[in-house]
Amino acid sequence: MTDSATYFEIQQFYAVQMQSLDGGAAQEFADTFTVDGSFVHYPHKRVDGRAAIAAATEQGVERTRLAGVVRRHWFGLPVIEQTDKDTLRVRYSAVTSVTTADGTVTHEPTCMVEDILVRQDNRLLNHIRTVHRDDVKDN
Amino acid sequence: MTDSATYFEIQQFYAVQMQSLDGGAAQEFADTFTVDGSFVHYPHKRVDGRAAIAAATEQGVERTRLAGVVRRHWFGLPVIEQTDKDTLRVRYSAVTSVTTADGTVTHEPTCMVEDILVRQDNRLLNHIRTVHRDDVKDN
Amino acid sequence: MTDSATYFEIQQFYAVQMQSLDGGAAQEFADTFTVDGSFVHYPHKRVDGRAAIAAATEQGVERTRLAGVVRRHWFGLPVIEQTDKDTLRVRYSAVTSVTTADGTVTHEPTCMVEDILVRQDNRLLNHIRTVHRDDVKDN
Repeated sequence: MTDSATYFEIQQFYAVQMQSLDGGAAQEFADTFTVDGSFVHYPHKRVDGRAAIAAATEQGVERTRLAGVVRRHWFGLPVIEQTDKDTLRVRYSAVTSVTTADGTVTHEPTCMVEDILVRQDNRLLNHIRTVHRDDVKDN
Repeated sequence: MTDSATYFEIQQFYAVQMQSLDGGAAQEFADTFTVDGSFVHYPHKRVDGRAAIAAATEQGVERTRLAGVVRRHWFGLPVIEQTDKDTLRVRYSAVTSVTTADGTVTHEPTCMVEDILVRQDNRLLNHIRTVHRDDVKDN
Repeated sequence: MTDSATYFEIQQFYAVQMQSLDGGAAQEFADTFTVDGSFVHYPHKRVDGRAAIAAATEQGVERTRLAGVVRRHWFGLPVIEQTDKDTLRVRYSAVTSVTTADGTVTHEPTCMVEDILVRQDNRLLNHIRTVHRDDVKDN
């Protein structure tokens, strides 16, 4: 049974994970995935393994830096299901803001995200993240 | 006294409720209201009863589908008050994003929402939702 | 050790604090700071003391009223660290929406915020808030 302690743990996990990403710490972000973790942009792209996730994230961080913008991720309220003793399925909406040096704010297409989180050595890790963009048909 | 267990329960209630709405499941959304529940867009419109809420929601879902967009609801931090043993008063800001097929994101006017939640048969239900849009005077 | 009870307490503190601000209750907002509290817009501006924070907030509320808009603050997921028994360090992203009377919604530049919260007489208060705007270099 999921409870308030697990809810806090998940929200804190996401806060640390996404502040790492938004702050440009690609390896720290990748380290929130299992060694065999996957990041899927359904249906077009999939990155398998923590090392590959780190490399892909590093490229994204560099693109953001070269564009001279700040990207931030915002998560909606998560629906949490415990699927077995050490596995959680979490679904939430997400959106990325882009702030330019002149202060303009735009948003990238909204998404639904499904995460499979696992507990290893008493901490949560992301096993599979699947992102469904709202502007992509049949996602 | 409201506590972290109640906080988690409310946030999970809202996550399920609004993912139902955003996913187009009008009846599931309506089922989060009491049979005698009301949805009020103050001061212009009020829908009374779960069946009428389901019908009005179905029309909204259909309009969204015909427009070829995805609407998502985002809730700000809730202020929670327990008004009696089985009744909670929750106030939060909310905003709806609209993502088109070409990836453009806009936002509908922000709102303040006040919910009266009641506990029936050991689960939360929405008794009255009152939405105050920020672009409507004297709301 | 931070736990779910503290998480709930912090989120409720922020909900009350920011609904006060967005609702135009400048003194109530200022009262969420310690008497010797500081509000810092790094690196350009700093306001020291609850009375000065109340005065500066009142001016902001009046500007918003004269502009005929509604401003709302939205907080991202907080990373929470307990730095000693009665002190918490909280970091989160934040963004302000502006809704005009014709329903248009825009966003001010996104920020990272760091708060030092302290417990006094068994309630949380904001000791120092430091806002780093994403459109300001070397912030």
